[in-house]
Amino acid sequence: MQLTETTALKEAYNSVRKYSEQICSPLETEDYVPQPVPFVSPPKWHLAHSTWFFETFLLKKYLGGYQEYDPDFNYLFNSYYNNVGDRVLRTDRGNVTRPTTKAVYAYRQHVDRCMEELLDQDLDDQTRSLVELGLHHEQQHQELLVTDIKYILGHNPLFPVYKEGHQLVNSFNAESGFMQVPEGIYDIGFMGDGFCFDNELGRHKVYLHDFEISKSLVTNEEYIDFMESGGYEDFNLWLDEGWSWVNENKVNAPMYWHKIHGAWHYYTLGGLQQVNPKAILSHVNLFEASAFAQWKGMRLPTEFEWEVASVNLDWGQRWEWTNSAYLPYPGFTKAAGAVGEYNGKFMINQMVLRGASVATSPEHSRKTYRNFFHANERWQFTGIRLVK
Amino acid sequence: MQLTETTALKEAYNSVRKYSEQICSPLETEDYVPQPVPFVSPPKWHLAHSTWFFETFLLKKYLGGYQEYDPDFNYLFNSYYNNVGDRVLRTDRGNVTRPTTKAVYAYRQHVDRCMEELLDQDLDDQTRSLVELGLHHEQQHQELLVTDIKYILGHNPLFPVYKEGHQLVNSFNAESGFMQVPEGIYDIGFMGDGFCFDNELGRHKVYLHDFEISKSLVTNEEYIDFMESGGYEDFNLWLDEGWSWVNENKVNAPMYWHKIHGAWHYYTLGGLQQVNPKAILSHVNLFEASAFAQWKGMRLPTEFEWEVASVNLDWGQRWEWTNSAYLPYPGFTKAAGAVGEYNGKFMINQMVLRGASVATSPEHSRKTYRNFFHANERWQFTGIRLVK
Amino acid sequence: MQLTETTALKEAYNSVRKYSEQICSPLETEDYVPQPVPFVSPPKWHLAHSTWFFETFLLKKYLGGYQEYDPDFNYLFNSYYNNVGDRVLRTDRGNVTRPTTKAVYAYRQHVDRCMEELLDQDLDDQTRSLVELGLHHEQQHQELLVTDIKYILGHNPLFPVYKEGHQLVNSFNAESGFMQVPEGIYDIGFMGDGFCFDNELGRHKVYLHDFEISKSLVTNEEYIDFMESGGYEDFNLWLDEGWSWVNENKVNAPMYWHKIHGAWHYYTLGGLQQVNPKAILSHVNLFEASAFAQWKGMRLPTEFEWEVASVNLDWGQRWEWTNSAYLPYPGFTKAAGAVGEYNGKFMINQMVLRGASVATSPEHSRKTYRNFFHANERWQFTGIRLVK
Amino acid sequence: MQLTETTALKEAYNSVRKYSEQICSPLETEDYVPQPVPFVSPPKWHLAHSTWFFETFLLKKYLGGYQEYDPDFNYLFNSYYNNVGDRVLRTDRGNVTRPTTKAVYAYRQHVDRCMEELLDQDLDDQTRSLVELGLHHEQQHQELLVTDIKYILGHNPLFPVYKEGHQLVNSFNAESGFMQVPEGIYDIGFMGDGFCFDNELGRHKVYLHDFEISKSLVTNEEYIDFMESGGYEDFNLWLDEGWSWVNENKVNAPMYWHKIHGAWHYYTLGGLQQVNPKAILSHVNLFEASAFAQWKGMRLPTEFEWEVASVNLDWGQRWEWTNSAYLPYPGFTKAAGAVGEYNGKFMINQMVLRGASVATSPEHSRKTYRNFFHANERWQFTGIRLVK
Repeated sequence: MQLTETTALKEAYNSVRKYSEQICSPLETEDYVPQPVPFVSPPKWHLAHSTWFFETFLLKKYLGGYQEYDPDFNYLFNSYYNNVGDRVLRTDRGNVTRPTTKAVYAYRQHVDRCMEELLDQDLDDQTRSLVELGLHHEQQHQELLVTDIKYILGHNPLFPVYKEGHQLVNSFNAESGFMQVPEGIYDIGFMGDGFCFDNELGRHKVYLHDFEISKSLVTNEEYIDFMESGGYEDFNLWLDEGWSWVNENKVNAPMYWHKIHGAWHYYTLGGLQQVNPKAILSHVNLFEASAFAQWKGMRLPTEFEWEVASVNLDWGQRWEWTNSAYLPYPGFTKAAGAVGEYNGKFMINQMVLRGASVATSPEHSRKTYRNFFHANERWQFTGIRLVK
Repeated sequence: MQLTETTALKEAYNSVRKYSEQICSPLETEDYVPQPVPFVSPPKWHLAHSTWFFETFLLKKYLGGYQEYDPDFNYLFNSYYNNVGDRVLRTDRGNVTRPTTKAVYAYRQHVDRCMEELLDQDLDDQTRSLVELGLHHEQQHQELLVTDIKYILGHNPLFPVYKEGHQLVNSFNAESGFMQVPEGIYDIGFMGDGFCFDNELGRHKVYLHDFEISKSLVTNEEYIDFMESGGYEDFNLWLDEGWSWVNENKVNAPMYWHKIHGAWHYYTLGGLQQVNPKAILSHVNLFEASAFAQWKGMRLPTEFEWEVASVNLDWGQRWEWTNSAYLPYPGFTKAAGAVGEYNGKFMINQMVLRGASVATSPEHSRKTYRNFFHANERWQFTGIRLVK
Repeated sequence: MQLTETTALKEAYNSVRKYSEQICSPLETEDYVPQPVPFVSPPKWHLAHSTWFFETFLLKKYLGGYQEYDPDFNYLFNSYYNNVGDRVLRTDRGNVTRPTTKAVYAYRQHVDRCMEELLDQDLDDQTRSLVELGLHHEQQHQELLVTDIKYILGHNPLFPVYKEGHQLVNSFNAESGFMQVPEGIYDIGFMGDGFCFDNELGRHKVYLHDFEISKSLVTNEEYIDFMESGGYEDFNLWLDEGWSWVNENKVNAPMYWHKIHGAWHYYTLGGLQQVNPKAILSHVNLFEASAFAQWKGMRLPTEFEWEVASVNLDWGQRWEWTNSAYLPYPGFTKAAGAVGEYNGKFMINQMVLRGASVATSPEHSRKTYRNFFHANERWQFTGIRLVK
Repeated sequence: MQLTETTALKEAYNSVRKYSEQICSPLETEDYVPQPVPFVSPPKWHLAHSTWFFETFLLKKYLGGYQEYDPDFNYLFNSYYNNVGDRVLRTDRGNVTRPTTKAVYAYRQHVDRCMEELLDQDLDDQTRSLVELGLHHEQQHQELLVTDIKYILGHNPLFPVYKEGHQLVNSFNAESGFMQVPEGIYDIGFMGDGFCFDNELGRHKVYLHDFEISKSLVTNEEYIDFMESGGYEDFNLWLDEGWSWVNENKVNAPMYWHKIHGAWHYYTLGGLQQVNPKAILSHVNLFEASAFAQWKGMRLPTEFEWEVASVNLDWGQRWEWTNSAYLPYPGFTKAAGAVGEYNGKFMINQMVLRGASVATSPEHSRKTYRNFFHANERWQFTGIRLVK
């Protein structure tokens, strides 16, 4: 998304903002409220927080005469920016029933009106960049909206349908076989004029040895083989922390899978349905991905291998676990102030995922994009690609 | 409430059921959802659970041809009755967004219609007793509705008003001084034809020694004296577990109290307001009550002293902590089956409170009524009466 | 123990102090160190703490010119006396390897020498009373020494023998049948000139209704019946917190019981041995005692019933669970300063046990003695007596 | 250590085994027992576990007619080898008082005698390699013995001296200034005939960009500057998890530092002493290392930069934190069976440290050696080297 024209920026703004509300349109008011686990935020909170970002980093700073909408909102809707002051404890987001959903939508409208005013002005590049950052930030929260809604509904004993016929989980491989990548020096990191996050910058060289990477992602069928051959019971396949995770949580299948009358079902946004064996596997964590690869006698790609191979790969179905830790590229520097808290401070104990998923917002992906989650997390649409 | 006539029983049914919904009428939909701490249940859950009680223990058993409204509701709205099957984990009540509030009201309507049909029939005494139990059960949940709503709104950083002008916290003593009770044998426990819970039965004799009991409850002013003389810092005043509670939670005032610009305020259902020094103290736990009594050189009454004295006392403002543990009376027996789980199984590690509070439903109090909470709990309208 | 004569007091002092060391004589140095769970203290700590009591409350105050043995010991060996200053966290006692066991014995010798000097002086009654308190305090720790040693050795996978042939767990009932006690007013609490704890004082009247109390304690055989008839699986028998305790800890037998090749064994201080069916049951907690009584269609006695009946009962085999909470008698007052922390501050959320056990030190029991533990604790030699 | 000759292998065996016992020689029996935190093991356990390794992987397999010393020892002294069966819970090691220290020494003697017999035989290369692995394994435990003993004594309120005059913490930089390393392709990983761990294998090429690396390690003086300029209070310097760690643990200095009468002291194996400002900083974790680097406007090296630069660096004072996650080299494969559990399964959520420390056993270091700990751990002799 390279938005040098005012019109283009305004269109992007309107389209992104509208899309968040579309994601929420099938919800009942009650669905906007809860935070069933600390890592899942209430939909109401996502809608407000992404709005707060524009108010805090743009309207307050660059729109002359702007009056803060509500002084309490900074406390309520700041996510983790220490530079912007105190905030509601992350684990208490689900207990804040007011402002109501309706009031949050009113807040969005207000900020959108003021942003329109701001975008009509002659903005310098830095301000335009901040708007772009705000839109990409909102797109990230759009994917979280989808996965958090799925978590909230998918853990309700009634398995309510989000949208009849919604098929997010069922997508298929277009290709098969392995692709060879020769040894050599490769360039890694973002290059170009468009938008990217700071963690993609610092384009640099890496040396890769020969490898072969699968053109397809692991399917449900293949994973069921692993399960049926005792994959969840054989400690030799697992990382030590993964083996503890399996045992402490008594895990024996991917998230959202339930065995009903002898047949595997999974909860999808279209409701509970039988597992489609040919569809691409989803909702596994790094521990499961790693154990599966071990069982296959293969391994996960590094994020560099992935980036190099990605030019020739079909992708965009699942966030693909790499076996690279989320660490800074050479020359990474973080911006001063709150915006600098965006990425750098999370560069510890998380693993990089590459690609994009069926829940990723349109145009919100790049082959240099570095997503990251903890090794035990699996409520995103995550999958497995193998290397040998 | 002694309801021998069909009409009276129907009137009682309608009036109690309606009152629950009146309590909730000022709520926004979002307020019905959360469970901020395990001991606070979502208002939506209270409305459904009290309805489930009638469906499970009356309609399913005594209304010919009754069809279960929704088989999932037993799982969702059972509170703690092991005899009635599995249930949602107590701590997960706040994550269940469906059925919606609207659907819960529809469930109430359905059950009310069927109950009307049942109540028109010629019921035997046992069935009538179960209806009465259901109504008393719902009245208990009405008080919890009030205190849980207060908890949800009172822990919101915005301190939203439940109902403008609502003054529940401000009630005053009508009398002062101490009353003498002479040594002797007294009868304790329920006697009469009306309704009572099983834990009040087993009328029996106790021997009491002389005591003097205060005719008034402790006021905010008196408690502020305790606070200002270092009551929360002097370990000699506290029970050992109370002292741990103070330190682990850094407590220095009753629940809902906030010091703002040097003045004590408290959250009330009418919003945040300055503490009224003459009003009766509320929202202290047994640890605080006990430390305050120790500081005064007095003590809390036993539940027997309280019951004997209550004939001549004005009461009904606060649940009054006694220093009696919640244990069975001689001859206590629990009923067979699920109804037997009502009281007996909680008779450990809880303390008895006597009286009633400003949040107690009309007619839901007796001088033999035994309320009980853990020593650290203080979200009920609890107060202190002293004995010397 | 009434010790009006200097000689008698000195003899008592020597005998009690020596007995603590006799209890420890079969230990290896390593056994003196660990604290496997917070409620079990290292034997080394017991030896030092009971010595610290004499140094702190007697030598420092009443022996002219006494020099503190080591200023660090107050920090290390204070148990819970807030009035005497800071102390090692209770849960860290097992990590303090120095002073060594040998150094602790040297500390004991030093204090004993100085106490001898003190006891040769002409002491007033209050000082003599404090010495007596110190001796009773040490006797309490002697019983804890026995039970803590049993815990340490009994949780070692090797089940090491404390003393060959030691039979503490196997004691038998001398009588059988039930004894009737008629309704009436009874006097409760300590009376006489001898020693008692402050919690036994405040002799007062209670009114008891008719009851029949068993002359024997429950045996292993009877308890195995309960186990085999599904006692640990039937929630209707259990207090609610007891049922949680069973499930969270997957309990299916008393503490120290192990099923080996189909036969129940238990760890005793004489080593692992087969359960003797005729021996008196030990190592159950209040939850188990209460469930067993429920299963039998009987109940546990109150502490008042127990005290009244005890005149005609054989006892001293097990600490017997009563269904009375540990609360102050009418007129209970606690002493000023540290000695006042001895009992009163624990009067919440604990249950009274009456009697004495095979591990109780000689002469350290009275029919008015009130022992107390939490409902979930069972590492003491605890048993069950029934009432109907 | 390349040990092709029988004599050399026997000498190495004797020397390594003796060194473990020398480390423990200043201990009192009590010091061998406790496990104050889960990551610190009792010295007694280290002595037994390293012996168990030889018994399990060598004597039982290769010494004809060997009888297991004690069948319980496998359960007691297995560390984490799932392939070798069940074991004592890691957190319970400190509660196992038997076998005694003396019995553990007897076990060592027995195994040493049998190993001598085995080493006199004509062993094939694989067996010889396993002996070497066992010795390196014991050397790793020797360093842990030193750091665990320091932890046990250093957390005793008495700060007992391990060995008078022991100066482990005070070592100094020999050089200063920065060294330049030019951009290019470098070879990484072990090469040669000697011993190395499997995680060093898979020698491969990496591409490095220009960097300058400090020839000295950060000193106490430099770190005090950081502390005094508010380093522990400025969230902008910290990784997000590091900032949580600081706040939850109220950290304001390296481990073992205490401010006494206004002056910084630290606990050393020679006792408590004033911090030497010129000595090399020790006992900081990755979070602190990273915050310090951020404050300096520099960064930590990657493990590849470190390995390349190490040829020209003086090192061996501290384990130096790198900003590389502990992950497999290309082509890493783990051995089958228990020996394969040595390294690979820990390759998640840990960071690589390079170098060696003053507590590292003689000859137990290589420039390709990959040590690894969690980002929050700091009881090893860890330090900071900066890159710009």
